[in-house]
Amino acid sequence: MGRIVQKYGGSSVADAESIKRVARRIARARGEGNDVIVVISAMGDTTDELMDLALQVSPFPKSRELDMLITTGERQSAALLAMALSDIGVDAVSYTGSQAGVITTPIHGNARIIDITPGRVEKALDEGKVAIVAGFQGVAQTTKDVTTLGRGASDTTAVALAAALGADHCEIYSDVDGIYTADPRIVKSARQIRMISYEDMMEMAAAGAKILHLRCVEYARRENVPVHVRSSFTDNPGTWVVSQEELKGTDMEEAIITGVAHDRGEAKITVVGVPDRVGNAAAIFQTIADADINIDMVVQNISDLSVEKTDISFTLPAEDGRKAITAIEHVKDKVGYETIRYDDQIGKVSVVGVGMRSHPGVTATFFSALADAGVNIQMISTSEIRISVIVGAQAIDDAVRAAHTAFGLDAESDATVYAGTGR
Amino acid sequence: MGRIVQKYGGSSVADAESIKRVARRIARARGEGNDVIVVISAMGDTTDELMDLALQVSPFPKSRELDMLITTGERQSAALLAMALSDIGVDAVSYTGSQAGVITTPIHGNARIIDITPGRVEKALDEGKVAIVAGFQGVAQTTKDVTTLGRGASDTTAVALAAALGADHCEIYSDVDGIYTADPRIVKSARQIRMISYEDMMEMAAAGAKILHLRCVEYARRENVPVHVRSSFTDNPGTWVVSQEELKGTDMEEAIITGVAHDRGEAKITVVGVPDRVGNAAAIFQTIADADINIDMVVQNISDLSVEKTDISFTLPAEDGRKAITAIEHVKDKVGYETIRYDDQIGKVSVVGVGMRSHPGVTATFFSALADAGVNIQMISTSEIRISVIVGAQAIDDAVRAAHTAFGLDAESDATVYAGTGR
Repeated sequence: MGRIVQKYGGSSVADAESIKRVARRIARARGEGNDVIVVISAMGDTTDELMDLALQVSPFPKSRELDMLITTGERQSAALLAMALSDIGVDAVSYTGSQAGVITTPIHGNARIIDITPGRVEKALDEGKVAIVAGFQGVAQTTKDVTTLGRGASDTTAVALAAALGADHCEIYSDVDGIYTADPRIVKSARQIRMISYEDMMEMAAAGAKILHLRCVEYARRENVPVHVRSSFTDNPGTWVVSQEELKGTDMEEAIITGVAHDRGEAKITVVGVPDRVGNAAAIFQTIADADINIDMVVQNISDLSVEKTDISFTLPAEDGRKAITAIEHVKDKVGYETIRYDDQIGKVSVVGVGMRSHPGVTATFFSALADAGVNIQMISTSEIRISVIVGAQAIDDAVRAAHTAFGLDAESDATVYAGTGR
Repeated sequence: MGRIVQKYGGSSVADAESIKRVARRIARARGEGNDVIVVISAMGDTTDELMDLALQVSPFPKSRELDMLITTGERQSAALLAMALSDIGVDAVSYTGSQAGVITTPIHGNARIIDITPGRVEKALDEGKVAIVAGFQGVAQTTKDVTTLGRGASDTTAVALAAALGADHCEIYSDVDGIYTADPRIVKSARQIRMISYEDMMEMAAAGAKILHLRCVEYARRENVPVHVRSSFTDNPGTWVVSQEELKGTDMEEAIITGVAHDRGEAKITVVGVPDRVGNAAAIFQTIADADINIDMVVQNISDLSVEKTDISFTLPAEDGRKAITAIEHVKDKVGYETIRYDDQIGKVSVVGVGMRSHPGVTATFFSALADAGVNIQMISTSEIRISVIVGAQAIDDAVRAAHTAFGLDAESDATVYAGTGR
């Protein structure tokens, strides 16, 4: 008996049969006396198909119209789910993001939630109905236009609604059954994590774990919403993402390292032979920022003291590689660098854990393990609770396994469940 | 130079190529200096596909959710059309019915427009943009839920917007190039009608001509919006639907009969041996009305004076036949009739024209022509400007041809263009 938000991803509602299956799961939660709010993604590949259609009509579709188009996907699955629930005797009503009061900034394709005014949802719950909300979308406060929150952001919708409606917790359903200490496809002995702090989960997400959207975890942390990540295909308990205080109150053994994440989606750009003048590094990073590209790690080496030139290397999403090179070429005359090197045969491997704050020597353990495994480190970056290295693409799996073993994360028996940490 | 509303049906926007073609046509109208408002239907079979999906999820989907689901079709085509226009340099913006201010009654699946508050559309026009509005949908004034106006009602959206925005006229585009004196598939010598009065068009629509939705013509008449019915595949002039005053001001020759319409979609029910008591006919028609069935013609015969029993026959949409029979069976004990006969092998043939008011003898001419063609008349109904008969299904084509010839409608040369009057 309580109030819960459940979020189902596109793979959980891929066709009519899946929608009926999800409806039965929701009916069970409602039957246990809970207020249930459901946030839903578009069916299967609907969003991709609509994007294809848009590109057939226009090579550079306007983002406002793209948002009008693709938000229909979640609206369809929300309406279908409401029908399926009514069909099994559960009163339900569907809402668009706008109807549910998801108020956003006006940035089409990448809007941020600035307020939730869930009056209609509250009313539906008061009337004993299950409220179904189309995920991933909202309405811009200023323009009243339909916006999207960026791909995968239905998780954020769910957590934001959970906070606004004072839900006990938020359940995020997908086709994986939780967060693992490493990707089980790489590390056979990876273990499912039963509880993880928001901080660790944010670092894991930023380091490449794709299960939860980073913004969603940020939101959950800010609003202190417990998130339960689980599979819609089983009844197994998943992973709880909670505050550090909550975590400390349990009998969970505190590990130094919570998990090992990896990311194959980055590329490295090196600007070679940059004259060592004030403002040159700024000029390079300004042109990258102007191109709306987020960079990750940065390293600057003095390559040749005698000629006062440096090399500047940084990593970025590989999909932005071409755009970044074009941007840097634009400032070639101004900066006077020699050449640009591009390498997408790299990967990032990170160890994450709030435990490392109170345990010195984590860096040494990590680097020794990599050295013993014959893995060469190209770049390093650290935060208070994360150490990341860039390695060659061929060394990623070895690096993940070596770190997992070195920090004592290996389970006694093999994990048999598919999971997605660090995909 | 003016302000026009253009409405394109689903067959005009069936795929990406069609959408681009429609965009070019709109660009031309805009390029001539007009304010252009476009009302759009869902792409091709989208609405049917969404209905199928709904029925897979629930055999009796809730009408509110059905409206949430199927209105996404028009929203998709509206957004895609806006992209296609932007792509060829025409600034355009799409609106849902709700955003365009189409305010309706809360009857899901069959709502009526009660107000249009097109503030956002006006603003877009002021900014020099083409405004694209998703047809067939609105928002209920009371519940704020998304509603639909009934199938084919995008025409009504277009006319209502034309009235609210003070447009010079409303162009209704489809795959036929106007209204014909009869269905050219039946009558080779049918002629395209250049101008027709609202009154005649309403009777033609009610009598089975499917080109324009009846409600749309009613709306156009009430608001005096000239409607131009034409093909999106050619530049040929189509049929203008205007007021009688407008029509009289032209040099158009006034025909006695404007056209011959037919309808294959009706069925006839005869309630046999109804005791001739006060209230029996009322009981039968009340049970039909309670079942939400619209009846068309009614005939009551005294079949046997000695036993004081009558037969009551009426016609109705064939799709409602089973429901009507069930309803009548419910009052069998109360009414005490003998049996029910059902016949869907019938059709309705109508001659329509405001000219018949001032020309006596139209009925005689019509019935003589049918007699000469060997067509047996089963039922008759008349209005001030229409005479309709029910004939056997096999006799429909002969009856249409005979009437067309008898009233001098045959063209000198054969019409070669496909048209849809009286499908």
